[in-house]
Amino acid sequence: MPASPIRKLSPFATQAKKEGKKVYHLNIGQPDIATPEGMLNAIKNIDFNVWAYTESEGTLSYRTKLTEYYNKLGYNITPEDILVTLGGSEAITIAMQTCVNEGDEIIIPEPFYANYNGFACMSNVVVKPILSYIENGFALPPVAEFEKLISPKTKGIMICNPNNPTGYLYSREEIVALKELCLKYDLFLFCDEAYREFCYEGAAFISPMQLDGLDEHVVVIDTVSKRYSACGARLGCMITKNKEVIKSALKFAQVRLSPGLVEQIAGTAAVDTPDSYFEAVNTEYTLRRNTLVSRLNAIDGVFCPNPGGAFYVVAKLPIDDADAFCQWILEKFDHDGGTVMMAPATGFYSTPGSGKQEVRMAYVINIDDLNKAMDCLTVALQQYPGKTS
Amino acid sequence: MPASPIRKLSPFATQAKKEGKKVYHLNIGQPDIATPEGMLNAIKNIDFNVWAYTESEGTLSYRTKLTEYYNKLGYNITPEDILVTLGGSEAITIAMQTCVNEGDEIIIPEPFYANYNGFACMSNVVVKPILSYIENGFALPPVAEFEKLISPKTKGIMICNPNNPTGYLYSREEIVALKELCLKYDLFLFCDEAYREFCYEGAAFISPMQLDGLDEHVVVIDTVSKRYSACGARLGCMITKNKEVIKSALKFAQVRLSPGLVEQIAGTAAVDTPDSYFEAVNTEYTLRRNTLVSRLNAIDGVFCPNPGGAFYVVAKLPIDDADAFCQWILEKFDHDGGTVMMAPATGFYSTPGSGKQEVRMAYVINIDDLNKAMDCLTVALQQYPGKTS
Repeated sequence: MPASPIRKLSPFATQAKKEGKKVYHLNIGQPDIATPEGMLNAIKNIDFNVWAYTESEGTLSYRTKLTEYYNKLGYNITPEDILVTLGGSEAITIAMQTCVNEGDEIIIPEPFYANYNGFACMSNVVVKPILSYIENGFALPPVAEFEKLISPKTKGIMICNPNNPTGYLYSREEIVALKELCLKYDLFLFCDEAYREFCYEGAAFISPMQLDGLDEHVVVIDTVSKRYSACGARLGCMITKNKEVIKSALKFAQVRLSPGLVEQIAGTAAVDTPDSYFEAVNTEYTLRRNTLVSRLNAIDGVFCPNPGGAFYVVAKLPIDDADAFCQWILEKFDHDGGTVMMAPATGFYSTPGSGKQEVRMAYVINIDDLNKAMDCLTVALQQYPGKTS
Repeated sequence: MPASPIRKLSPFATQAKKEGKKVYHLNIGQPDIATPEGMLNAIKNIDFNVWAYTESEGTLSYRTKLTEYYNKLGYNITPEDILVTLGGSEAITIAMQTCVNEGDEIIIPEPFYANYNGFACMSNVVVKPILSYIENGFALPPVAEFEKLISPKTKGIMICNPNNPTGYLYSREEIVALKELCLKYDLFLFCDEAYREFCYEGAAFISPMQLDGLDEHVVVIDTVSKRYSACGARLGCMITKNKEVIKSALKFAQVRLSPGLVEQIAGTAAVDTPDSYFEAVNTEYTLRRNTLVSRLNAIDGVFCPNPGGAFYVVAKLPIDDADAFCQWILEKFDHDGGTVMMAPATGFYSTPGSGKQEVRMAYVINIDDLNKAMDCLTVALQQYPGKTS
């Protein structure tokens, strides 16, 4: 099982901290953005005396409120199509356990969120990676490449849209291509939409939930973690209009009894978060993304696509080995007493040797620190002994 | 996968409700006891702005505080021996996935908490049940019976102490017998201690954590659900002094990122719950247990042992079939406009045919309602067409 990218590269980070360096954390997807006040107030205003179990599928009031949110996006769902989960993590595990038999396969474009490997491993599901490339911004690989991998063991395709780690936002044409593929081969389409709210410059977010004729095939994974900067809530959900799937998924949910009560109360309040919150967050992330991408591309030998969503970029650096570089910059380098922690992209690829020159950066720190981090990286790339160009 | 006992027998219950019957719910382990004020106040007083991930193993401050609680009981542990989980449910799943390879076996005395089957199924672990008997109050089966089941595939023994569903409290002699068995055959001893605080009439709770020489073998499963009447918190933990096990367990925990932040804050406050809270709860449960057990044994043909702990009893009734009876009493019966919902014990046995005359009752309702429920049961057993004696 792979180490989680959320875990810091602890020994080196600890060393850097001991030496008194200021470490700019671009390595993890923990936003610095405040959780909506309405959500925090809902926690502060709880009025129950017994912190009781809820229904295994989540409270009807929370699921009903969630349909308000999703139906504004055109998902056209009812509370019965939603299973509330302990984080997006559990939604992924339950979706895999429900839809894919032991030893069967799902295809995932890579680089992909490393923990998908962990969930697959825990569910005895085999992940078949399919390479996407930094040169075209990590666009969906051609349908022909998917078809090469499809076998009788293939049960589904999984995407993360907008993508972690690349930030890539799939186009309507790409989602339609996936729809046709899933219909042709009768595959599930698992869509992790954790970053749905983070699409920049007015780019449209397209979910397969909005397309006709795919009701039996689509399983959406969602979480409040990123949408409301509430990663510590551990509140997610799985959505599907496939009645058999939701019924089987409930059996897995019943084994663990209940999602959290306080979280569902807070999640209910969160649906009423004003648009102004998302507008402010979007403005902030757009500024950060633009700054990060332009600073990166201004460095000699660096290439970074300008992604349409999420709050990550994957950049190609003029280095021999991303793991070695990310370690070196923490351990052996500082600039004005600071350094940068990044996630080597190798952790997001299954294909050996892939991503060796790439790093993932999360723009979850303020713009001043982001600029200082880029100052560090610029100098570090001049000094790094394993520089390749 | 079996249905969860927490789920109501919904079609029949709904029917009973429609007919305007008052239903006394003895079927589920959701206590009516208030959650400690200190715990609820900790929720109301949260002062963070970003509802962030915590460490995958739980916050150091919560784990440190937990050691206070456990070390008062003589567990002699450090924060590094604790993995905080999303409920006791996740602790069981992670313990199984960490300690038992696919297809290997654990032995569990039955009747046992039905969801153990679900966790085992999700972990590809095979459960070998070993019968305990109502005649001796569901005491630990003789060591020789365990030895008959032990094979090279056996990796552990699991107990729940005090027991759900029987309420049985294992004696020091029984825990020592299990220790010797686990040492002799090098087996893990998984102890689900969710009901630790519920031991009556001064009976001593014995944990294998308190015994010498078993550090590598014991894995304790715990939860705040019952101790603080906080089932909806989904906050548990796994405790072991086996360094390899805790290290491997952390990898599973890292895949799902983090337990809940609010819950850990509340859980930290919960450790300071005054003794008076537990004394009041103990007094209340003792009264209920005594009432329930004496009322049951006063009914012709009923036998109910007087269990030492938890808040459940399993009673033997003069009936042909517990499933049919529990359905009949809801659907076809009422007494003064009321009826009783109970859990047929068949759901807690794996051995076919076992528990057919037994039901589990949770004394989680107030004493007046408990007496009314027993009035109903008394009359129902006179009228039930499938009465056997």
